[in-house]
Amino acid sequence: MKLYTDCIPCIISQTVKLSADLGLKPDDQKKLLREVLLLSSEVSYDRSPPHIAKEVYRLIHKILKNPDPYRKVKEKYNQLALKFYPSLKEEVKNSRDRFKKAVKLSIAGNVIDFGSNRKFSLEKTIKDALRKRLSVDHTGSLKRSLIEASKVLYLGDNAGETVFDRILIEEFPEKQIYYGVRGSPVINDATLKDALACGLDSVAHLISNGSDAPGTILEDCSFEFKSVFDQSDLVIAKGQGNYETLNEVGGKKIFFLFMVKCPVIAADAGCPVGGYVVMENKSG
Amino acid sequence: MKLYTDCIPCIISQTVKLSADLGLKPDDQKKLLREVLLLSSEVSYDRSPPHIAKEVYRLIHKILKNPDPYRKVKEKYNQLALKFYPSLKEEVKNSRDRFKKAVKLSIAGNVIDFGSNRKFSLEKTIKDALRKRLSVDHTGSLKRSLIEASKVLYLGDNAGETVFDRILIEEFPEKQIYYGVRGSPVINDATLKDALACGLDSVAHLISNGSDAPGTILEDCSFEFKSVFDQSDLVIAKGQGNYETLNEVGGKKIFFLFMVKCPVIAADAGCPVGGYVVMENKSG
Repeated sequence: MKLYTDCIPCIISQTVKLSADLGLKPDDQKKLLREVLLLSSEVSYDRSPPHIAKEVYRLIHKILKNPDPYRKVKEKYNQLALKFYPSLKEEVKNSRDRFKKAVKLSIAGNVIDFGSNRKFSLEKTIKDALRKRLSVDHTGSLKRSLIEASKVLYLGDNAGETVFDRILIEEFPEKQIYYGVRGSPVINDATLKDALACGLDSVAHLISNGSDAPGTILEDCSFEFKSVFDQSDLVIAKGQGNYETLNEVGGKKIFFLFMVKCPVIAADAGCPVGGYVVMENKSG
Repeated sequence: MKLYTDCIPCIISQTVKLSADLGLKPDDQKKLLREVLLLSSEVSYDRSPPHIAKEVYRLIHKILKNPDPYRKVKEKYNQLALKFYPSLKEEVKNSRDRFKKAVKLSIAGNVIDFGSNRKFSLEKTIKDALRKRLSVDHTGSLKRSLIEASKVLYLGDNAGETVFDRILIEEFPEKQIYYGVRGSPVINDATLKDALACGLDSVAHLISNGSDAPGTILEDCSFEFKSVFDQSDLVIAKGQGNYETLNEVGGKKIFFLFMVKCPVIAADAGCPVGGYVVMENKSG
């Protein structure tokens, strides 16, 4: 998905909020803001939002002199999500439609996002998810595709959300699953460390994508990751960042599972902000 | 008031929205956005928001090839406000505290602002104003200052709002009143044309400030305007833009009358967004 002009003020706004949240000194906040403004004035608008977000977070890390400012936040949400694991399993177990319940819960986990929304209640989101209707519902097609597939690449999004992904992955134990994560820290996105902390290695082959973009920019990804992507029968991509970077990729069956977090994506996906989406790509 | 870093994403966001509202072609929208981003990356953050807004609107006018894109909007609101004039006069006449009622109504008129909020109902705002409490209420001091003053400079803000200012000005007919307006069009701010259209010349000496900033940047203003400013016993300044540019000016008794339209001003003035403010300057 190409950047919309509306994405730019949102990126600038995120920069201002995050730089305050991360404790940057006022002078450094202004320095970062100026650099992000300059970058935004020069960058190509023909690429996806994660292309520019990647550059913004590189600047943040440089000015903070910290390559992983969300480390503690990620650890906190890994632990918090793990505490929910038994009750989530119970919810799925007691459900008439286990698969759909697991899908909804995996989308609920997508709320743990410090890029677009920093205020959320994980508990309330889980509760709401249990009776939530999907705004876009290609779950039937996803289920059929899963039955047919043997090799599945599941692309994670945020740390902690990985636990919710695990709940869904555990619903198809007979498949060969690869769980893809970011190659380097960006916002609170899951890296190998987070996937391991949440026990994803017990249900999937973990693979880093080799990139520090908050999405999956294939040309940035490692050769190994691209091979797995190419060889997969099916890709399940979590979160807006993966949607924004992969929704125009052709020749591959991809399902996007995410919570709609902004008006731009709402308009693009044709559903309301806050909506839950299970969407099959058109070009697959 | 110096620019806060939070003002920058707001200015960028306004640029995106206004350029769409004003019918700029997509390529021109992007061109304008890039220019505003570059400008925002270079501009001094030690000046007030109207300093940068002035430059932004110059860019908008240049790219639109139209020095007054809000002309029709301004004419519409001049006419609409004039329709309310008789009922507003009636409200004031039937009030136990005429002065306070007139003050509140003049602040209600401040809602006609296409810079910060483009969606509003003038009728509903007037209705609400009649029973609204002032968030900051220096009306008593304003009234006393008016009694003592002989020469008063009243600084208008938006077109149409001028009618509401007239209602207030008509409450002190014995004073020598100057009504100041912007020197050139910027957003929907009132110029001489709008003040004349609303009959302000029947209650005050009209004076252009000679500047195209959406506020009163004294060093930008004409010699004539500055003389009137200097010689006034009292300045009544309407709107956030005048507050942002004059709230640190010393040696002059200034009262700021405005509706709070953003979190930055809310924090600065210590009251909620949507609040009505009558504030005496500290340095007067």
